[in-house]
This record gives sequence, structure tokens and C-alpha cells, in this order.
Amino acid sequence: MGAVPSRDDFADRDARDPLADFRARFDLPVGLIYLDGNSLGPLPAAAVARVTGVMRDQWGRDLIKSWNDHDWINLPTRLGDKIARLIGAAAGEVVVADSTSVNVFKMLAAALPLRPDRPIILSEERNFPTDLYVAQGLTGLLDQIGVRAELRLVADDGSRSASDQVIAALDETVAVVMLTEVDFKTGERHDMARVTRAVHEAGALMLWDLCHSAGALAVDLNGCDADLAVGCGYKYLNGGPGAPAFLYVAKRLQDTIRPPLSGWMGHAAPFAFDLDYRPADGIGRNLCGTPAILAQAVLEVGLDIMLDADMAAIREKSIALSDSFIARLEAVCGDDGFRLISPRDPASRGSQVSFAHDHGYPIMQALIAHGVIGDFRAPDVLRFGFTPLYTRHVDIWDAVEILRDIMATRAWDDPVFHRRAQVT
Amino acid sequence: MGAVPSRDDFADRDARDPLADFRARFDLPVGLIYLDGNSLGPLPAAAVARVTGVMRDQWGRDLIKSWNDHDWINLPTRLGDKIARLIGAAAGEVVVADSTSVNVFKMLAAALPLRPDRPIILSEERNFPTDLYVAQGLTGLLDQIGVRAELRLVADDGSRSASDQVIAALDETVAVVMLTEVDFKTGERHDMARVTRAVHEAGALMLWDLCHSAGALAVDLNGCDADLAVGCGYKYLNGGPGAPAFLYVAKRLQDTIRPPLSGWMGHAAPFAFDLDYRPADGIGRNLCGTPAILAQAVLEVGLDIMLDADMAAIREKSIALSDSFIARLEAVCGDDGFRLISPRDPASRGSQVSFAHDHGYPIMQALIAHGVIGDFRAPDVLRFGFTPLYTRHVDIWDAVEILRDIMATRAWDDPVFHRRAQVT
Repeated sequence: MGAVPSRDDFADRDARDPLADFRARFDLPVGLIYLDGNSLGPLPAAAVARVTGVMRDQWGRDLIKSWNDHDWINLPTRLGDKIARLIGAAAGEVVVADSTSVNVFKMLAAALPLRPDRPIILSEERNFPTDLYVAQGLTGLLDQIGVRAELRLVADDGSRSASDQVIAALDETVAVVMLTEVDFKTGERHDMARVTRAVHEAGALMLWDLCHSAGALAVDLNGCDADLAVGCGYKYLNGGPGAPAFLYVAKRLQDTIRPPLSGWMGHAAPFAFDLDYRPADGIGRNLCGTPAILAQAVLEVGLDIMLDADMAAIREKSIALSDSFIARLEAVCGDDGFRLISPRDPASRGSQVSFAHDHGYPIMQALIAHGVIGDFRAPDVLRFGFTPLYTRHVDIWDAVEILRDIMATRAWDDPVFHRRAQVT
Repeated sequence: MGAVPSRDDFADRDARDPLADFRARFDLPVGLIYLDGNSLGPLPAAAVARVTGVMRDQWGRDLIKSWNDHDWINLPTRLGDKIARLIGAAAGEVVVADSTSVNVFKMLAAALPLRPDRPIILSEERNFPTDLYVAQGLTGLLDQIGVRAELRLVADDGSRSASDQVIAALDETVAVVMLTEVDFKTGERHDMARVTRAVHEAGALMLWDLCHSAGALAVDLNGCDADLAVGCGYKYLNGGPGAPAFLYVAKRLQDTIRPPLSGWMGHAAPFAFDLDYRPADGIGRNLCGTPAILAQAVLEVGLDIMLDADMAAIREKSIALSDSFIARLEAVCGDDGFRLISPRDPASRGSQVSFAHDHGYPIMQALIAHGVIGDFRAPDVLRFGFTPLYTRHVDIWDAVEILRDIMATRAWDDPVFHRRAQVT
């Protein structure tokens, strides 16, 4: 950069931003700097009209007939095909259903029988807890009825990349490896292609959690020969709080897995009301209960925005926002005790940046009170997500200026900011 | 009744109906006679404003903070407490989550380890297929990894009540009995108290599916000493297509079950991000992933209407509607080949009436085309649901008059009505 940058430089970047127009497609509170779209994306401007339309003109007017007349029945696969385009999958490889946690269970329980002599689910201590909990629930269920299956966790020894550590832990007991591509806390990104290859060489299956990837960066599941994946609808895909999640099963595996959550919507002929479960061909067998139509309609609005954008432009701007956030914060608050815990190399990072700080909790509360929304992750992490569709370069400048004030005035050291009321 | 009734008699009943005002709380298409609220309830008039408010004033304005500021985090238990009042459960015994199918899986998988020496899940052939499919998925999963668990189905021998047939099939191998209180096809109602008692005497656990009960008739889970239950949000509770479902676990069992779908929302401290799953105390441990906030908000509107109504009045009107439908149909179309397959005694019946007919499919299509919405269930069943909050006595009269015309003119025997396009 050379010269010391100014806010005008950041405004210039916005003026030249090819994604600038996307901001108008979200209803954002005036004056708020929202750096938490990696936790809950904002409200797409068209979402209210869309869900109102589905409620009034479909549910309200055509009632039960809407399953046919408005093709509700195919909404999960139709949205799945849209998500497929964002994650390097083919049409017919993705379906929208249930929550990420439920989908993790489906995928793990489908994977274990494919490697019947291997008892181990391999993951990392730093993986998002619900993935670990769900694996524990599955192994716990099996254990209670006398089957040995076990979750083995790679502890971070700090010595190498997360990917290298996982690869080193592979052996012939591993049935399936479950990893989140982008670490929820540090933003460190796995080398998806290299890990998947190593997992396959070890004879295991690979399950990727794309919660912090889908919509944030280019994912190439097919190019990596990935087996299984799950992901979230309410983060970078802007599908609303608790939006339906998605799952991916590679075509070559689809007819070999037997869904453990074998509800009627995954049946080959749900309305034949047969006595016996007969899985649908293809990805559809991974549906379980009746799809959440209203929530899926909202998610579709978020997906349609994302599909209008160029993923390479999103990634480029994400890196620019993240890099400049790091640079500004270190330039302005360099002596204030912040320690970057995200990889400095953008190639090893997702679309978030995290700093540790001994007073991380009250500092984040003070930021929130001053209109900069990030989040806190125990024990000491301030986490900032960068979402190029609606975050401007000047937001980065302004956020760091606000942080500078908070640190300079010790505004964070107010008892109100130390109280632990935050749940998310 | 004595004298032959007239439409005026039915209108008189409406004039005296203590529930008449509830009809205005739904947006119903003008002229439509909707006898399928047992499949998908109609749009509550307040639902659009409610979900719009949650989207604009909560999600849109307060974003991630809404989990705290608008108490999203407690929505599943708050709605659960409302449903508890409809099904004879205590506060803290019900939670809203996932789909009915997923909840069936949770409950069965939680029940089996409580009776570790008993391999059998007992149900009926006539149970709703998704319940059977989910049980097959669970036993299939266990079987693939070497554990014997088995779904045993009671076939209807026609000799006795469904309850008697199930009770006769109990033995010391049965771990859990899973029944839908009201049969989806015939409307036959189990004797919940007597069956539960017999199941307990046999040393097994009892799981009730209340999909066709909740909101339709008074259920007394606590009074029957029921162990586990699940139910649907989008039928009589009017929560919208694919609305979140609910589950019930009796207080005395809550801390003994280990949830198989152990996601972060069921953790004792979800935001501590502990490495190990530690189930929340009480009903909350049966949550799994992030709750579907928008869908739960819509469901709450339906629940609030239901809670304003008197369940005894609902049941009384339901019986009046059902009885008069049977009487009118048999009086008017008695020679047209309809065979009542629902119990004639209202005490043995839920809130629906089904007739078999050799031409059931095209007759139902003709009814739908003429503005009377019921549904068809293979192979030959015409099913009519009676929902006292918005169905009038004159609707019954008019529906049967339309059926009379269809039969008299053979309007049903049009090729367009024979085509099998219907999915629901």
C-alpha cells in the first residue's frame, strides 16, 4: 500500500466494487456494521414479499392442492440443485432438508455401514461442537446396544496445518472423516482436495461440513471427489434464522446408502402408503419428514441473490475486506493486546477473521453497543465475518475506528459489558 | 332427528355454534368447502402479519441479537408449553422441533436402550407409513452393524378393535409400542388409557403419535401415564405446510433418556462450545439443530387460536359434523356404493370420516373440482376431516349435496378425474 490509507481510499474501493449493487438486495439497519453474517445472514429485501406470497396465494388459497399446483413437493430438490451450483456439485446431488445437525447424523449413520470393519469416526477437537455431539450421539446409541463405534478427535498440537494433522491421524480403523472446511473459530481452511485424497487412500469416506464455506468461497466437491457433505442455510446463504440445511451425496454413492432417518418423503412412492420403506432413487432418499415449505421459500430468496453474484468476485472482495481489516486493526490497535488467531495467508482462511484478546468478551459487547456486530467465542475470541454482498470497504474502516475509540477510552471496561447474557 | 332435516336446520346449528366466531380467524377461500384440515390446516389470518413482523422487526432489524432480545432461543420450549395444554401434558414436557418423522426416530432410539433385553418395536400395519419407515430405518441401521432390533407389526384381522389386537400381541420381547392414536385412514381411535396400561403391565414403553389427535380432541397424556409422544404442527394445529413438529417425554423419563440426535441445541450449555455432549436437563435435550424460527412463529399463531377455544366444544362440534356427514351421505347417496370404513360410534373415532368406494379416486377428484376438498388414500378411500374452528354445519350439507350431484350425473366418470396426478 505504501502511503497511509484514508477512509477515502476505502470509499474509492466501494465505488469500484463490482458487487456494490447487491447491498440493496438486503434490508440492513441504517448505521449498523454487520460483521456476523457468518452466524446469521441478514434479511433479503425480497423475502417478506416471497413468504407472504407463498402464504396468501399458495397455502391460503390453494391449501393442500399446493403440493401439486405449486410444486411444493419438489422444493427440496429444486433448492438443492441451486445450492449444488455454489458448491461444485451436479444437479441431483444436493437436497435441502432438516438441520445441519440432523443431516450430520444422516451422513455419519449412512457412512458407517459402508465400512463395516472400521469403527472410527475421525474428526478434530476444533470442529464445530454440534458435529462432534451428533457423532457422540450416534456412537452412544450404538454403544448402548452393544456395538463399538468411536469418535476419535485430533487435538491441535500447533505444529502443522490442520489438514496435515488430520492426514497424519488416518489409519485402517477409520470409516469416515468428518471435517468442517472452514474452522468456525479461527477461520482456518482445510485443503479439501488434499485431505479428501488422503482419506480415500486410507480407504475411508469423507464428510465435509460446509457451514462456513457455502456462499463464502468457491467449493468444488466434485473436483475433490468428495463423498458426503452438509451445510447451513442461514449463514452465508441468508436463508433466515434456523433455515433448512442441505446435504450432498456423490452420485456414485447415492444408491448404496441406506438412510437411517427413513421417513416417508424419502420413500420411492410416498403416497402409495406401502408397508415397507423403499428408498427413492438418488438424492431424494435422504429426505425424511414433510419439508418446511415456508422456510424453504425464504431460503430460496437468499439463494437466488447468491446465484446472481460471481463467486470469484465474492472471494476476491472477501479477501480484500479481511486483509484490510487485519491491516487496519494491527495498525490502529497494534498495542492493545489483540492476537490474530486466523491464518494470515488468505489462501488458508475462509471469510472470517478472529482475534484473541484477554478482554475479548467485554470488548465485543462494547463493539455491539456501538453498532459493530461481530461475535464472541469462548474463551477469548472476537470473531468477524466478511460478507461481500452487503459489507462495504468503508464498513471495515469505520469498524476499526470504533474499536480504536473503545480501546483508547477503555469503554469496554464498563460493568454492563462484562455481564454474560449473550447466548449466540 | 325425526323429521327430514333441511339446510335451514344446519344453518340454525351454525347460528347457535359457540365456536362460530373462530372461522374469521382463518383466511379461507370464498366458496371452498375444506374438509382436509386433517392433512393441512388453513392459513390463520394473523399469520402473515406475525411472520412479517418477525422478519422485519426481529431478523431484519436486530439480526443475530434476536436470539437474546426476542428470546428466539426459548421458542421451542415456549411453544412446547402451549402444546402441552392441548394434550394433557405439563409445562416442560413438550418441545417443538424438527419433523414428526425425525421425532419418531428420536423417541424410538431413546426408548430401545431403556429396555436393553427386548428387541421388538411393536406397531400396526395400519399405522401411518412414515412411523413404520422410520422404525425400519432404525432397525436397519442397527442390523447393518450387527444388532438385532425388529419392527413387529400387528395385521388387522378385523376381529376386534385395533386396541384389543395390539394388546393381544404384547409379550416380554416388546421394548416399545408405537401407535397413532387416531388411524390416518379410517379415523379409528385407540383407547389410549387402556393400551398404555397394558403396555406398562407388559413391561414396555408406550410412544403415541398424536398427528391426528392434537387439536382435534382432548388428549390426556399424563392421565394415561404415557411415556413418549410425537405430533404434527400442520394438521389440526394450523401451523403451515411442513410446520415444525413436537415431541413429549414424561417428566419421570426425561433424565434417563440419552438423545440419539444429540445436537448443540440439546446441550446443557450450547454456547460453551464444550468438546463433549452433555444433555440439558429436562425436555430441552431432545432439541437437535438450530430451531426454525420463522416456521415456529407461524405455528404459534395457529396454537394461540387453538388455545382460545374450548376443547370440549371442539370435540362436541366435531362429532356433530361427522355424525351428520355420515347420516346425510348415507341418506342421499345410500345406493351409490359408499361403504363407511370409520367406526360409527363417535367415541371410537377421531375427527375424520372415511368411506371406501370402488371409484374413490375419480370421485374425490370430482369433488375437489367442484370445491369440496377431501383427500384420497389408496386403494379406495375417500377421507374427510372435520375441523370445528372453521367448518360450518352448512358446509356439511352443501358438501353432500355436491356429492349427490356428482354421483347422479356421473360427473366423476370423466377421464380428467381418473388421471393420477395427485401427490398428497
